Amino acid sequence: MNNTVLQSNYKIVDMKDIEYILSVVKDDERVFYGETINEDYSHDELGGVKKMPEVVVQALSTEEVSKIMKYSYENKIPVTPRGSGTGLVGASVPIYGGIMIDLSKMNNILELDEENLTLTVEPGVLLMEIGKFVEENDLFYPPDPGEKTATIAGNINTNAGGMRAVKYGVTRDYVRGLEVVLPSGEVIEIGGKVVKNSSGYSLKDLIVGSEGTLGIVTKATLKLLPLPKKFVSLLIPFPDLQKAIDTVPQIIKSKSIPTAIEFMQREAIVAAEEFLGKKFPDNSSDAYLLLKFDGNTTEEVEKNYEKVADICLENGALDVYISNTAEREEAIWSARGAFLEAIKASTTEMDEVDVVVPRNRVAEFVKYTHEMEEKHDIRIRSFGHAGDGNLHIYVLKDALDEETWKLKLNAVMDDMYKKARVLKGQVSGEHGIGFAKKPYLNQSLSPETLAIMRGIKLAFDPHNLLNPGKVC
Amino acid sequence: MNNTVLQSNYKIVDMKDIEYILSVVKDDERVFYGETINEDYSHDELGGVKKMPEVVVQALSTEEVSKIMKYSYENKIPVTPRGSGTGLVGASVPIYGGIMIDLSKMNNILELDEENLTLTVEPGVLLMEIGKFVEENDLFYPPDPGEKTATIAGNINTNAGGMRAVKYGVTRDYVRGLEVVLPSGEVIEIGGKVVKNSSGYSLKDLIVGSEGTLGIVTKATLKLLPLPKKFVSLLIPFPDLQKAIDTVPQIIKSKSIPTAIEFMQREAIVAAEEFLGKKFPDNSSDAYLLLKFDGNTTEEVEKNYEKVADICLENGALDVYISNTAEREEAIWSARGAFLEAIKASTTEMDEVDVVVPRNRVAEFVKYTHEMEEKHDIRIRSFGHAGDGNLHIYVLKDALDEETWKLKLNAVMDDMYKKARVLKGQVSGEHGIGFAKKPYLNQSLSPETLAIMRGIKLAFDPHNLLNPGKVC
Repeated sequence: MNNTVLQSNYKIVDMKDIEYILSVVKDDERVFYGETINEDYSHDELGGVKKMPEVVVQALSTEEVSKIMKYSYENKIPVTPRGSGTGLVGASVPIYGGIMIDLSKMNNILELDEENLTLTVEPGVLLMEIGKFVEENDLFYPPDPGEKTATIAGNINTNAGGMRAVKYGVTRDYVRGLEVVLPSGEVIEIGGKVVKNSSGYSLKDLIVGSEGTLGIVTKATLKLLPLPKKFVSLLIPFPDLQKAIDTVPQIIKSKSIPTAIEFMQREAIVAAEEFLGKKFPDNSSDAYLLLKFDGNTTEEVEKNYEKVADICLENGALDVYISNTAEREEAIWSARGAFLEAIKASTTEMDEVDVVVPRNRVAEFVKYTHEMEEKHDIRIRSFGHAGDGNLHIYVLKDALDEETWKLKLNAVMDDMYKKARVLKGQVSGEHGIGFAKKPYLNQSLSPETLAIMRGIKLAFDPHNLLNPGKVC
Repeated sequence: MNNTVLQSNYKIVDMKDIEYILSVVKDDERVFYGETINEDYSHDELGGVKKMPEVVVQALSTEEVSKIMKYSYENKIPVTPRGSGTGLVGASVPIYGGIMIDLSKMNNILELDEENLTLTVEPGVLLMEIGKFVEENDLFYPPDPGEKTATIAGNINTNAGGMRAVKYGVTRDYVRGLEVVLPSGEVIEIGGKVVKNSSGYSLKDLIVGSEGTLGIVTKATLKLLPLPKKFVSLLIPFPDLQKAIDTVPQIIKSKSIPTAIEFMQREAIVAAEEFLGKKFPDNSSDAYLLLKFDGNTTEEVEKNYEKVADICLENGALDVYISNTAEREEAIWSARGAFLEAIKASTTEMDEVDVVVPRNRVAEFVKYTHEMEEKHDIRIRSFGHAGDGNLHIYVLKDALDEETWKLKLNAVMDDMYKKARVLKGQVSGEHGIGFAKKPYLNQSLSPETLAIMRGIKLAFDPHNLLNPGKVC
């Protein structure tokens, strides 16, 4: 991309448009255009896709979003919604320019309803703020993606999963109701505080995971659970990765469901240690499983983890470290949380693969990434959610020149996504498709499926004005 | 309806069409037309909506379904899929005639995958067969709608909920992958065995709950859980219904989440006793809560239910009966399971309301139904899922003449759905919209929302051939 203008019939933003936006917002400190736009608005966390918006509005209310969207619809100006910009596939990059609506300042927690166990929030509330708030109230919002500075609407738009998906499911499972501004500017309410709903097609489930292409989420009602009282983590070294990952289906089969099952290799741990300047409890083995268990009583948690520890030892684990102090928990999970940043810091540029495969095929896929590392002579690092089959694989540029990098990257990507299809996996487990992964979605889904997705987009957005050029 | 022909541009089925179907199926014992069609195919369990199909095919394979659908698409013949016909809103009634595809004979359990904890089944497998099969394998399929002779595809198409939704969620939460025949006859695969998926719009979640209007489900991969080892039910008498239901938000607030929280009144219990010829453990009180708890250890379950029992006693419960023998469980839950049949047997005709409201508004809604009983001078019976806000309310014809019945029924229905909207509820918690509830969905949703739903239908089914006249 790199700021090249895409051919389109969209209207270019002019001063009249900016004056309209100012008349809606009534605060010129929340409207940016020309030189005043921060460069950060042109890309997300990955950076490979870049384009500046023509104007940025920091919205504070549904009414502002609705009015600006309606105006854009009437004037054929593309609109791209944005949260914290922590995405990894370019979903929030305004590839056709136009208006960017930054929702990060709509960040109020609106209501905790303890009788219905729901939390209603504005779209820009950060994941870490939600976690903190509900835990202070002895409640629990299970989705736990690594990036805690993402906004909740960003999580909803990618259907983010995170580590606890093994036991608790993904963001979609915790969205009860949404307020959405449609491309026409109309505001609709979907779902609500109700626990069940069979009243027409599930637009809620369609908006979740739609990456800001079908509507702009301006309010969300989330489902909460009681906060589990006890938790324990196990760090389990294995002589090699194959043995570690092969153990996971045995754990699942044992019917003791951990909260999280992560796999990691020594390189990732050492990189995180260097990045954080802190020691991990152990880095002497080639591969590790990191498991978490939660429950309401010590006995319940113990019973669960003892069974799993035995399975690991029977399957070749070298030891089982039980982490039941706050200090050790912090050391382990802060390292796990720093993997992405540490890998990023270790190279010049990178791209990622976020495939999901059936969980008994994870070992095969990771083995394949090692073969790819040799075949294409390029550094590849991976870690991920062994318990739910979602891998995070990073292809690293290091010292490669631009042309070699592009060639190798494309070849590696093609191989990886081909393998995912063979294993009956999907292109993205939780990062979404955005702009960067569109070619792979096109290869992965049937033409009929893609045609239906395009028809759905049309039903919401007949002029293709909301976040155009994304998903399908 | 009653067999009146609806105006349409659909092709009438002729002998050429039937010959084509016979050429596909190659078994004339699975194709019925004219006099040979069983009258049962003209209605579902409620019976208020009636229309005979022109031809019925009992399909045995995806290929047969695909070929017949493709032929119908090319020849503009409407197609209605059908499972066991246990629906309550006319969703499987072929209101425009045409071809009915009966999927109840595609009833094989295809694969239990213990490493991924999934079960893959054909659409016609009955809910009770799935329950039995997985429990024999020490596994658990949590959705638990009352009607155990429904097919799994019927459950998927209504997004059936059932009693365990309080703790475990609804059918949608347990569908991982689907094979679907589109209105064009093309076969697509959606999802799979993967635990997470953010690869384009979630067509899986759209098909779930679409009542056979977007595609025909020909295979489903379901998520399973480990089977909980211990369970206990509590039957808790209250002096009146208001006190019983008002206790539910207190239970939810206590953060001890039961598997199920049902409410019932003496009339329903007495009717079930008469219907089954068996005694319920107690029928001396006006109202009851019936709670179920499950878990893996006796301590875990005890700790949970003791806390809830205390809350109930503090809130006016007269006693707490603990049911921990198989015999007592059977007596209680078989009575609960017979409520619908018992009510049906007590009257000449009935219609139902399946609204869902936030769970702290259930008491208000039930109180309102009693007011409606007096206001409209008509017998109304209700029971339902107090724990998830989903009420089942039956309006009974008894000895009313046809004209009075229709008038009163319409007036009661209007009042009920109006009240549901005021309480921020939805038209259907789990039975769906089908044909019978369309007017109420139209009143409940915004014109923008309905327009999008119609656009989605168009994206799947541009000629409106698959189960036309339903949902929206």
